[in-house]
Amino acid sequence: MSNSFYKNHSPFKISEIYNLLNLNIINVNIDLDKEVLDIKDLVNANNNEITFFHSKKYSEIAKKTKASFCITTNSLKDYLPKSCIPIIVENVLVSTSKVTSKFYPESVNDDFDDTAININETNLKQKVKFGKNVLIGSNVSIGSNCSIGHNSIIEKNVSIGINCSIGSNTIIRNTIIHNNVKVLDNCVIGKHGFGFFPSDNKNLRYPHIGIVLIEDNCEIGCGSTIDRGSMSNTIIGRNTYLDNQIHIAHNVKIGENSIIAGQVGIAGSSIIGSNVKIGGQAGISGHLKIGNNVEIGGGSGVIKDIPDNTKVMGYPAKNIREFLRENKWLIIQQ
Amino acid sequence: MSNSFYKNHSPFKISEIYNLLNLNIINVNIDLDKEVLDIKDLVNANNNEITFFHSKKYSEIAKKTKASFCITTNSLKDYLPKSCIPIIVENVLVSTSKVTSKFYPESVNDDFDDTAININETNLKQKVKFGKNVLIGSNVSIGSNCSIGHNSIIEKNVSIGINCSIGSNTIIRNTIIHNNVKVLDNCVIGKHGFGFFPSDNKNLRYPHIGIVLIEDNCEIGCGSTIDRGSMSNTIIGRNTYLDNQIHIAHNVKIGENSIIAGQVGIAGSSIIGSNVKIGGQAGISGHLKIGNNVEIGGGSGVIKDIPDNTKVMGYPAKNIREFLRENKWLIIQQ
Amino acid sequence: MSNSFYKNHSPFKISEIYNLLNLNIINVNIDLDKEVLDIKDLVNANNNEITFFHSKKYSEIAKKTKASFCITTNSLKDYLPKSCIPIIVENVLVSTSKVTSKFYPESVNDDFDDTAININETNLKQKVKFGKNVLIGSNVSIGSNCSIGHNSIIEKNVSIGINCSIGSNTIIRNTIIHNNVKVLDNCVIGKHGFGFFPSDNKNLRYPHIGIVLIEDNCEIGCGSTIDRGSMSNTIIGRNTYLDNQIHIAHNVKIGENSIIAGQVGIAGSSIIGSNVKIGGQAGISGHLKIGNNVEIGGGSGVIKDIPDNTKVMGYPAKNIREFLRENKWLIIQQ
Repeated sequence: MSNSFYKNHSPFKISEIYNLLNLNIINVNIDLDKEVLDIKDLVNANNNEITFFHSKKYSEIAKKTKASFCITTNSLKDYLPKSCIPIIVENVLVSTSKVTSKFYPESVNDDFDDTAININETNLKQKVKFGKNVLIGSNVSIGSNCSIGHNSIIEKNVSIGINCSIGSNTIIRNTIIHNNVKVLDNCVIGKHGFGFFPSDNKNLRYPHIGIVLIEDNCEIGCGSTIDRGSMSNTIIGRNTYLDNQIHIAHNVKIGENSIIAGQVGIAGSSIIGSNVKIGGQAGISGHLKIGNNVEIGGGSGVIKDIPDNTKVMGYPAKNIREFLRENKWLIIQQ
Repeated sequence: MSNSFYKNHSPFKISEIYNLLNLNIINVNIDLDKEVLDIKDLVNANNNEITFFHSKKYSEIAKKTKASFCITTNSLKDYLPKSCIPIIVENVLVSTSKVTSKFYPESVNDDFDDTAININETNLKQKVKFGKNVLIGSNVSIGSNCSIGHNSIIEKNVSIGINCSIGSNTIIRNTIIHNNVKVLDNCVIGKHGFGFFPSDNKNLRYPHIGIVLIEDNCEIGCGSTIDRGSMSNTIIGRNTYLDNQIHIAHNVKIGENSIIAGQVGIAGSSIIGSNVKIGGQAGISGHLKIGNNVEIGGGSGVIKDIPDNTKVMGYPAKNIREFLRENKWLIIQQ
Repeated sequence: MSNSFYKNHSPFKISEIYNLLNLNIINVNIDLDKEVLDIKDLVNANNNEITFFHSKKYSEIAKKTKASFCITTNSLKDYLPKSCIPIIVENVLVSTSKVTSKFYPESVNDDFDDTAININETNLKQKVKFGKNVLIGSNVSIGSNCSIGHNSIIEKNVSIGINCSIGSNTIIRNTIIHNNVKVLDNCVIGKHGFGFFPSDNKNLRYPHIGIVLIEDNCEIGCGSTIDRGSMSNTIIGRNTYLDNQIHIAHNVKIGENSIIAGQVGIAGSSIIGSNVKIGGQAGISGHLKIGNNVEIGGGSGVIKDIPDNTKVMGYPAKNIREFLRENKWLIIQQ
């Protein structure tokens, strides 16, 4: 992915990256002064950039990477093309986290945005309808006919389209919002996700260089939280409505025209299709694929992929016919 | 219901309503200049008012309506009395939504209240104990011996009784609060509910002309959301206590002396009795009737009505005896 | 426990306590002018202090109490040593609540902190990095290298260590935070718990004289609520991470190095071990003991103690092997 929000602190000499990872340089053919310009995934990395490769299931992609360097393991290194120099480490993800943090140090922590100033001190005061005590960070753009409620904070790196309504007490950062979107009160959108490498004394947070993207015509209910992505983006598709107190974790992608009722939670990196209906309090585990036109009953716990055009219910969620067969008492008189 | 909060923009000539709904006037006997004063349900509508009738189950009520006009379908129109002129449409609820929006345009969207000003600029400053940055909208009344915490926003159309304590960072609108009520921090009370007609490119929001009513001696925990009703009110009965992070959807009615633990969600239009206990994280589906003296175990998912004096648990929630019979291992040593 | 935060309004003559409880003094040997200095539990109470004893399971501890007075029942009074004068009541906990409220009247209600002033008017302005509109109450200390986000309120009785980051729109009171802790946006930490004696017309709130303690290196996610303890403390152990929208009730204690995913709720007085992983939306009932190295699957409902080194899942939560045996379809192709 390309990210226009975080400052890339490159170039770094490849020797600096070896030092960061506490590695000895055993390959005498490396030009230690070679400069590295960015870190990207296997598909998107180019010449003079570094990538990472941590699982055999990406071996076909790895063979074609254009990256000049790749953080990987001894057992995976031979999949890489000759043009890509492997950097052998114990734990690919931890090392990738460290290198990403070097390129994008501002993406690790989310301390409050100290660039934010009162909207009255910005050019937006003529353009936007706003409440009391509204704060605006650096690198914020807002289209015509928008309103922002009292005490809301549009932190740095936010782009809002036209005809949008932001509620009160809401915090937004690192987010692109398209047109005709409503974000209600008390939301937090665009903070870093719940991602870190557990370690017994002090966990290691990993950087989140992704953003949140909210497409046209969406509504986000009160008290909801939508975390930005780590290496990809979190996306809410066009005309999708979220009710109150919903939690959307990092890297989740939701399709168009979906309806998500109150208190639903969707764990990290799950992909939800279009025209999906999710009942209140349902939960969806991480890294799942939910198809199009799926209906998930309220309170369900989804722990497995769901194909297109399916209705599920229960915990663990199963086909609605199976659920009702097991709970016949629900459809007869008690 | 009668609503004192939303401005009724009537009168409208009936020809304006036909135009709004893109209908041809086929009944030559209609006085096109006849004025319509309000929109109400079948029971409450009077002469010179319009109502709606969308399901055969209301046919007995329809026969007695006093409304002069009724939005309905071709197959239902013959239940109406002679005094009531049917307006035949494809989708009664969508058309009712459009007409309600015409009478009460301010009830559709909940942009922030731009009438709100600092409490120091209002007459309430002598009467109320208040924190920093408290905002008060138009048409707000607050009784004696009340306190309002920092950054809280009492938007327009709020009445608060005596001896009430409102926390900090809380937002209230379109709400009547009786006496001795505590609303804790970070709540949002009185916003419109999660109601709209799904449509593939752009959903159609429907108006919420109801309010939230919180009776004497209630407590509402931190981070809770209580949505106002669409055509009726959302009601929290006397001496009912809600814990933190609870979501109460539009049109829900909860009786007296009930106790609702953290993270419970109650979906739209469900009616909860008095002396009800609901354990943490339980969910109640919409349009259900939960009797008096009911106990619902923590984490339960209630998807069916519950009669008085019943204990239930599980997902789907069933009688506690049945639940324990199926889970005998819970009560013997593992 | 000893609490340095709430003002103890003692001494009170024992006759005042009898009057408060509407009791006749039938024991002619009592010195009615004897002063009582504090109320504590059976273990910690000393001479000139009052304690309470409401269940036979504490009889061994009761025999050794050093308290001068003990609120108890007629059937339990004979377990007390000669040095401890029993005060016989109908309902020990209600009477204890009344007496505690007399010693610590500020611990009953949580009206907003009217001692809070803008941080710019305090000595902390030189020491702390802070956003707009930050408020600081009385008796607050903050270590070096800390930041506090916009609109956050550090109410009275808070101690924050070094290298801590507090988000925006967050409210903290009656809390001790150690070093390197992150509390994200929109949290409410340290309010009184959901504790009261139900009563048909007006519930009786009981006092919360405990605090919240958050140890080194913790992270608390957005929109989370952590209630302070009633007679003991609520504790989040070192290097434990909480995701968004989590609710931790009063008196809960969580060990070290634990990971708790989004929307989890832990009910009052449960004890969670170290190195525990809890999946999203799981709920844990009150007064349970969860061992060390336990893993609880997302969405689980835990209603029974869990021994060390156990994986559980389901509602009600059971051993993961049993859960998978009952849901074989999960691990075969559908």
